[in-house]
Amino acid sequence: MSDLHRTNAAAESLTYVDVRSVSPALEYYTEESLLGGLWKRPELSPRDRSLVTVAAIIARIQTVEMPFHFVRALDNGVKPAELSEVITHLAFYAGWGNAMAAVAVAKSIFHQRGIGKDQLPPVKDKPLPLNEEVEKQRAIQVGNNFGAVSPGLVQNTTDLLFRDLWLRPALVPRDRSLVTVSALIANGQTAQISFHLNRAMDNGLTQAQAAETLTHIAFYAGWPCAFSALPFVKDVFERRTSH
Amino acid sequence: MSDLHRTNAAAESLTYVDVRSVSPALEYYTEESLLGGLWKRPELSPRDRSLVTVAAIIARIQTVEMPFHFVRALDNGVKPAELSEVITHLAFYAGWGNAMAAVAVAKSIFHQRGIGKDQLPPVKDKPLPLNEEVEKQRAIQVGNNFGAVSPGLVQNTTDLLFRDLWLRPALVPRDRSLVTVSALIANGQTAQISFHLNRAMDNGLTQAQAAETLTHIAFYAGWPCAFSALPFVKDVFERRTSH
Amino acid sequence: MSDLHRTNAAAESLTYVDVRSVSPALEYYTEESLLGGLWKRPELSPRDRSLVTVAAIIARIQTVEMPFHFVRALDNGVKPAELSEVITHLAFYAGWGNAMAAVAVAKSIFHQRGIGKDQLPPVKDKPLPLNEEVEKQRAIQVGNNFGAVSPGLVQNTTDLLFRDLWLRPALVPRDRSLVTVSALIANGQTAQISFHLNRAMDNGLTQAQAAETLTHIAFYAGWPCAFSALPFVKDVFERRTSH
Repeated sequence: MSDLHRTNAAAESLTYVDVRSVSPALEYYTEESLLGGLWKRPELSPRDRSLVTVAAIIARIQTVEMPFHFVRALDNGVKPAELSEVITHLAFYAGWGNAMAAVAVAKSIFHQRGIGKDQLPPVKDKPLPLNEEVEKQRAIQVGNNFGAVSPGLVQNTTDLLFRDLWLRPALVPRDRSLVTVSALIANGQTAQISFHLNRAMDNGLTQAQAAETLTHIAFYAGWPCAFSALPFVKDVFERRTSH
Repeated sequence: MSDLHRTNAAAESLTYVDVRSVSPALEYYTEESLLGGLWKRPELSPRDRSLVTVAAIIARIQTVEMPFHFVRALDNGVKPAELSEVITHLAFYAGWGNAMAAVAVAKSIFHQRGIGKDQLPPVKDKPLPLNEEVEKQRAIQVGNNFGAVSPGLVQNTTDLLFRDLWLRPALVPRDRSLVTVSALIANGQTAQISFHLNRAMDNGLTQAQAAETLTHIAFYAGWPCAFSALPFVKDVFERRTSH
Repeated sequence: MSDLHRTNAAAESLTYVDVRSVSPALEYYTEESLLGGLWKRPELSPRDRSLVTVAAIIARIQTVEMPFHFVRALDNGVKPAELSEVITHLAFYAGWGNAMAAVAVAKSIFHQRGIGKDQLPPVKDKPLPLNEEVEKQRAIQVGNNFGAVSPGLVQNTTDLLFRDLWLRPALVPRDRSLVTVSALIANGQTAQISFHLNRAMDNGLTQAQAAETLTHIAFYAGWPCAFSALPFVKDVFERRTSH
């Protein structure tokens, strides 16, 4: 919802007038329940809500929502370098074509705002410190489970994800985890929630923020995705509390 | 498949000539097996088939199919107010961006057909009667299971969905349930089928209609979605029969 | 990624310059890790990688990637008739609208390359031989499980899929299976992996090729889809080995 001009053919933004012409009720819910309600709840900052929303709409390739929410993310304090890095991250966690659909929209917004290379993360940067012990345990466990099933996938997971992408400093690990968990929920990848929600909370996401992420994402990925995630989120919360 | 002119950039309709130029077999299956076969089966009315189809293509953001099937839905007896309400409903059950992708197509069709505000559901209308006992049981069960996990999601589910959206009179509960179940199957949300299929049948969907919904949706969401839903649908049928 | 001109409104291809303007890192990963790395691994031929990629991007409706990868598939030795048949096959295995999104892109590429009807599979062709015993067992098992749940779906599965589509000679069964398995993984349809991966291996896909398919598809469907598939793939491998 915005008055943004078309940024490209695949991502024409809608205006409130457009929405009203099909569903006055949907316009009302958008203004009152969503932008005027959910987004104002204090349990999650507007910047966090933008990270969750952007992750969800890229994970679902909801191109029509991208121009509005990419601009909103920048306005809510997501730096251009961070939005760039979210897209890079989701190439691995939601699919290359999902990231490319986001590139098609973001390039016009970056161009309009004069965001150039100097504001984008470099190809290679000083990596964040790695917790070698935690990563070693992860690699051993995945290797034992699946090393013989798909050695290439297991090796790439170590080399490209946990010893490269996750160490890029353009997005702090807590935000990278928040984006990852949001994409998992939005894509119905419930089997991966346990590992990544635990990692997110180890990286500093609070339980209250994780709970509100579910509240938020229900609107962007649909209630069924949020409800299908609930038992897995509950299990993570309970196991961490009982420790 | 239609000769509809482009309604917008994201939703160019294909003609039979286009399909034939890539796959004569796909044109044949579309004419013979799908439109000339499946759609003619008496187990489900053309109007119901349109509701199922529209729900599936919005749930999957199959924009290329939207112009043809939105027009077909209107021609099959889905009222403009009902199509509008299906889109509003799916904002909650398939994601806001899914509904917005549908708005982008529907606005042109509504404009072409001179469908104005007087034919659309109002923002607020006299709500349908609520079965307080059933809703109370639902709320207690969800609250006990998940109230401590994501209080915001649980509260919104009560306030926005079961005490607001589901009571809107623009779509009768049986049709609203049919759209919901179709979106769940099309999105692979098997964990939510049991609750909503039972609700659909409580709302008047017959077992034969539910069975044929699966037959129909296999074409629009792909066979794997239909087959993954089968055990859950079977379980609902068996439990209701043994009562 | 390509310099292909727009083939249609829904499928504008991106150039490296576009990607760089949003994320220099994503351009790097695309050139080095993906096209210059993954695609060069000997475990799967470029033609097979194209089949897997095309199946994944159609299954996920990643329209922005379609022009580049359809052209690449043709250049990697996928015949026009085979690409046509992949699209036809995925109408049934990923959804009619998914196939139609592919038609919208392929028609321009076929037109540009002068690919006409003589290079496309005919509507009806001499069917491949059917293993009646295997098909009989399949039909009995599915019939016993689900024949009373959705008779139409079960009948269509026999008539349209296993006694028609799968016997079309335009795609050899091994390739048809590879496309099917790739679409299942890309759409998170894990419950269907066991049947179709076994069928794929019966049709000649080696375990090493199946393993590398997972490695490959992680990039196009996202890591979570590949990891959610891993336990199901592992189970198939182990059961076949222990026989």
